[in-house]
Amino acid sequence: MTSEDHVDVLIVGAGPAGMMMATWMARCGIKTRIVDKRGTKIFNGQADGLQCRTLEIFDSFGFADRAWLESNHMLEICFWNPDSTGKIARSGRIPDTIPGISRFQQVVLNQGRIERFFLDMIDRESPIRVERGVLPTELKFDESKAEDTSPDAYPITVKLRHLSEEEATPKQVATSANGMSASDGLFRSNLAADDTADLIKAAELNAKANTVETVHAKYMLGADGAHSWVRRELGFALEGESTDYIWGVLDIVPITDFPDIRMRCAIHSAESGSVMVIPRENKLVRLYIQITTTEKSADGSGRADRSKINPEVILQAANKIMAPYTLSYRTLDWWTAYQIGQRVGTHFSAKERIFLAGDAVHTHSPKAGQGMNVSMQDTFNLGWKIASVLKGTADRSILKTYEVERSSIAHDLIKFDHKFSRLFSGRPAKDVMDEEGISLDEFKEAFAKGNMFASGIAVNYGASQIVAKAPEASTNGANGVNGASKPVQSQQELATEVKVGMRMPSFKVLNQSDARPWHFQQRLPSNGTWRVAIFAGDLSLPGRREELDALAASLAKPKSFLKRFTPSTGRYDSVIEVLTVHSAHRTDYTVLDFPEVLRPFHEVDGWDYNKIFVDDESYHEGHGDAYKNYGIDPAKGAVIVIRPDQYVSYVGPVADYDSLDRFFSGFMIEQK
Amino acid sequence: MTSEDHVDVLIVGAGPAGMMMATWMARCGIKTRIVDKRGTKIFNGQADGLQCRTLEIFDSFGFADRAWLESNHMLEICFWNPDSTGKIARSGRIPDTIPGISRFQQVVLNQGRIERFFLDMIDRESPIRVERGVLPTELKFDESKAEDTSPDAYPITVKLRHLSEEEATPKQVATSANGMSASDGLFRSNLAADDTADLIKAAELNAKANTVETVHAKYMLGADGAHSWVRRELGFALEGESTDYIWGVLDIVPITDFPDIRMRCAIHSAESGSVMVIPRENKLVRLYIQITTTEKSADGSGRADRSKINPEVILQAANKIMAPYTLSYRTLDWWTAYQIGQRVGTHFSAKERIFLAGDAVHTHSPKAGQGMNVSMQDTFNLGWKIASVLKGTADRSILKTYEVERSSIAHDLIKFDHKFSRLFSGRPAKDVMDEEGISLDEFKEAFAKGNMFASGIAVNYGASQIVAKAPEASTNGANGVNGASKPVQSQQELATEVKVGMRMPSFKVLNQSDARPWHFQQRLPSNGTWRVAIFAGDLSLPGRREELDALAASLAKPKSFLKRFTPSTGRYDSVIEVLTVHSAHRTDYTVLDFPEVLRPFHEVDGWDYNKIFVDDESYHEGHGDAYKNYGIDPAKGAVIVIRPDQYVSYVGPVADYDSLDRFFSGFMIEQK
Repeated sequence: MTSEDHVDVLIVGAGPAGMMMATWMARCGIKTRIVDKRGTKIFNGQADGLQCRTLEIFDSFGFADRAWLESNHMLEICFWNPDSTGKIARSGRIPDTIPGISRFQQVVLNQGRIERFFLDMIDRESPIRVERGVLPTELKFDESKAEDTSPDAYPITVKLRHLSEEEATPKQVATSANGMSASDGLFRSNLAADDTADLIKAAELNAKANTVETVHAKYMLGADGAHSWVRRELGFALEGESTDYIWGVLDIVPITDFPDIRMRCAIHSAESGSVMVIPRENKLVRLYIQITTTEKSADGSGRADRSKINPEVILQAANKIMAPYTLSYRTLDWWTAYQIGQRVGTHFSAKERIFLAGDAVHTHSPKAGQGMNVSMQDTFNLGWKIASVLKGTADRSILKTYEVERSSIAHDLIKFDHKFSRLFSGRPAKDVMDEEGISLDEFKEAFAKGNMFASGIAVNYGASQIVAKAPEASTNGANGVNGASKPVQSQQELATEVKVGMRMPSFKVLNQSDARPWHFQQRLPSNGTWRVAIFAGDLSLPGRREELDALAASLAKPKSFLKRFTPSTGRYDSVIEVLTVHSAHRTDYTVLDFPEVLRPFHEVDGWDYNKIFVDDESYHEGHGDAYKNYGIDPAKGAVIVIRPDQYVSYVGPVADYDSLDRFFSGFMIEQK
Repeated sequence: MTSEDHVDVLIVGAGPAGMMMATWMARCGIKTRIVDKRGTKIFNGQADGLQCRTLEIFDSFGFADRAWLESNHMLEICFWNPDSTGKIARSGRIPDTIPGISRFQQVVLNQGRIERFFLDMIDRESPIRVERGVLPTELKFDESKAEDTSPDAYPITVKLRHLSEEEATPKQVATSANGMSASDGLFRSNLAADDTADLIKAAELNAKANTVETVHAKYMLGADGAHSWVRRELGFALEGESTDYIWGVLDIVPITDFPDIRMRCAIHSAESGSVMVIPRENKLVRLYIQITTTEKSADGSGRADRSKINPEVILQAANKIMAPYTLSYRTLDWWTAYQIGQRVGTHFSAKERIFLAGDAVHTHSPKAGQGMNVSMQDTFNLGWKIASVLKGTADRSILKTYEVERSSIAHDLIKFDHKFSRLFSGRPAKDVMDEEGISLDEFKEAFAKGNMFASGIAVNYGASQIVAKAPEASTNGANGVNGASKPVQSQQELATEVKVGMRMPSFKVLNQSDARPWHFQQRLPSNGTWRVAIFAGDLSLPGRREELDALAASLAKPKSFLKRFTPSTGRYDSVIEVLTVHSAHRTDYTVLDFPEVLRPFHEVDGWDYNKIFVDDESYHEGHGDAYKNYGIDPAKGAVIVIRPDQYVSYVGPVADYDSLDRFFSGFMIEQK
């Protein structure tokens, strides 16, 4: 039996990277299938940390609140080191998230719940359904069609085989620890109620078992993990190294006299290795425990003998490190062990038709809580680009920015992880003369610096067609390469804290029409839309009103970029949304005082009351001081172009309509 | 066909009051049935305003976040009055919610969504399911068994008839307005996705149609609306008056040049009546429009002729009042018209076995957004009391406090509504000599005062067994009547801003174990548990540590009230939870520095890390200044007893264990 199907996008792998891609496709209305060879989603264990930036992204899709509510919030990191007698003692504290960098702080929640949020969103907003127990077996890629954007060009052909339930179920290793059995893998009894349906579906796999179908796709994503089948089919490799450090991981409800067990702790013992404590939701604590005593495998691979590692061995190691404190448990939720390896893929795409993301292009140690975040951010970067190309609003050339932007992040991640792992696995220095040991100061400093990286906020994309900044800091080529006669130049000094290439920071502004405070990012939901944010300045100051009116007049012209690139069938804000933020007194204006193009009329909905904002005092949530925090002078104002993924493309003067037009002309496609 | 059933609680009516009752029963694990004669829940229109206090209550059940996200937030009230030329002009603005009184502000959301949140919670946490299309036809109440608390005493017998779909479906009045049809009742096409199941269920009614069953109940609630069948069966009446004011209500997506349409507005025209504007979710705006031209009904009842009122008539009236601004719409979501009537029930219960709540005991005008809130708060007051009596932890005598506490609120509500309606329906004064007209100052002042009442925060229960304050301000009788030799006296001066009889205010404190900031109310979830909050003071000051240790030692004794009133099968915090909030520096202590009874040990879960809090600076959310805001001196401290519904029972010194013991002994039942 063979059937045929045609899709715009085929996603292989329904982990966080694949789910994020499917979420973009759901939001943008792209015909998509997503398959995973596993029979059920995961329910516990696995990755757990969520960066500030990841929560901002979740919020842009409308489910950060669920993660925020269910997760454990991490506030403080405590450092424990040997004191002068060699016993561990608390030697310092720092905030886990650098205060002020985001409206969210780093939290911890198991991957199963995170996948649930994605699934619910996809379910609600689209017909896309994750197909489990489906294995791709054959990939054909007709490279000659890579640049063919005609509607019936499907360069990719994949054969999918539907597995039986047994085939789709990974082998479960039953473990007995402290008299309880626990899983090291997928299955658990304490499922959240809304996962029941998944288990029922798993049992239904057999109905389709062993059928094969042929899927023709325009684009494809391989988000199928470190052993990526897609990557191997393309003949791409991961490059990097393994280390000797071996770590065990326990997710337990701890019974302990260690006083900081609900803090994130970095514990270095004098001679017995290190423990990292990550407090989690539902009373759980994750412990990363350095295993210093395990034998190597007999196969000569240099890898640890996994059969010698079990929860009891890991717990014993923890007790040795944490002595004189003791640690035990009655509840073991999940456990694993791993050897640190850091690798990055040689290619992130084949001809910008087949893309790789997540563990398929970068692997590293889990301790810093980066993997799942960087993986999701890979496809958060990619999804809107593919969607806009498929919708015919953007040129295919923007797809090149995926590899440029994300491989640079992957390499930064590996560097960070390498340094972090070395510091963490190393022996603490006995004194200042102990050069082989890691000094506490060195460790704390690295941790503090690492925190900025680990927040996800530090990401800074280089100059390109869609990032209008001087190319000095990067080799990505200048923007404006596609048709514009000279590159568009940002004037960073007009908004000193809104860095071109970085994500738009968020401060509270008030809706002009109803005085409600919003974090500015809340007005930038992920729906595939570009934003032109007009920071008009203080309209009571000389020239501000005139410049705003002039810009509005240009935008209102039939040939403005706003009109040219918006399909006649689309709403006025479907491709580019104009948002205005002024800084005069709210009560001196009403929304109807602003030019019509800034708050357009819709024949059914009336005037649009959600486009004009003001930087002023709120009744209940203080003053966002947005202009001050963005580094914008109310006497000058600024225009900021924000990508559909909230990264800043351009900062320029309110008076400069032409640069805006040239910027969008560099990659957007004129509509009929 | 007749079947028999036995339940602890039978709820008649699945509107907000009935749902709140069912929610308590779900949370407390009480065997309950809830029936409603209507075939489906409501989907739009109806009541819409949610008070600050109602959101606090929703939060205590875990779903305030849903209401907060979906609702429209009301921030500002604008007053529009005739200017010197007689045209309406904005004459003032005030905040809609008084800043600082709650962590929530008043919001607006349709009743259908609110009922959805209740249903989801009940569904998730209990086997209770709302049974629709079920009509009670016969009530027998054996008063001789009213005081019988033996397990097999069921004083109430009710016959229930299952209706057919047709019988359960209220007649829908099809209305054509502006070329669109709109409903004035229950049915709508734009249902939220999660309501589909309800419609399917409605269609299944016929399977059980016309079967009759007999239900034996220990307690019963009549939350069956203004025409309450339960009230009529008991022979109780509503007393009060109707007025001549007639109001039309339109829920529309407005198309208008009125600039404040997204603000709550009170518009008084010179001669044409008044309009109240309530901006809502999904672009909707509700308008309450005074109808000054409608004829009386021919039946001589003095009531308006409803057949003469339709959306076009109401819209015309609005346009007359709002001139020179114009108002129209393409989307009409719901409409109605009503005549103001204010009535309160003569009795709130029959022998504290059958209770009435919501519209069944108080009706009034909807404009102030109070009805649904007060109704839900009726059963929020009642639910935990019945649950604790059924569980055998509290004496039946506490049930008398329901009528005492809630009838006083109902009368306050009527007074408020009467004044508010008169002011709102009256003609604005032309000048200071116009004594019949309502002056703008009078109106603004009444509005500002009304805002405190309308927040729900002003509720102040009188002295009783469970409110240990001097009885002067009330005639409810002193506490301690049930067995205690002398009434327990609060020392209000120890916590000047924690008023005995009012709800516990909320400020942020940090969890000692992980530095996470929590609003104190978040640590008071509605689960039926009493709280003893020990504000231990600054432990570094003289005497503080000693007093805390002494209190802890008393609590730890086998005969302490904490142990005596907790069943041996229950967890240490199942009846009374002890929370400690100190005000020394967080980093000078760990949770393990506190006496064990304050952070008890559980053999599976280890130490309890969620009982000790500290009033200190947080990393990301500022300093809650809880001691300062509660009016507690860190050099003295205070102990506060908080009821399961977050109302304050008692304020006293840390050193006074005996008063605590006497307080609980006044109504709690010693366990074996």
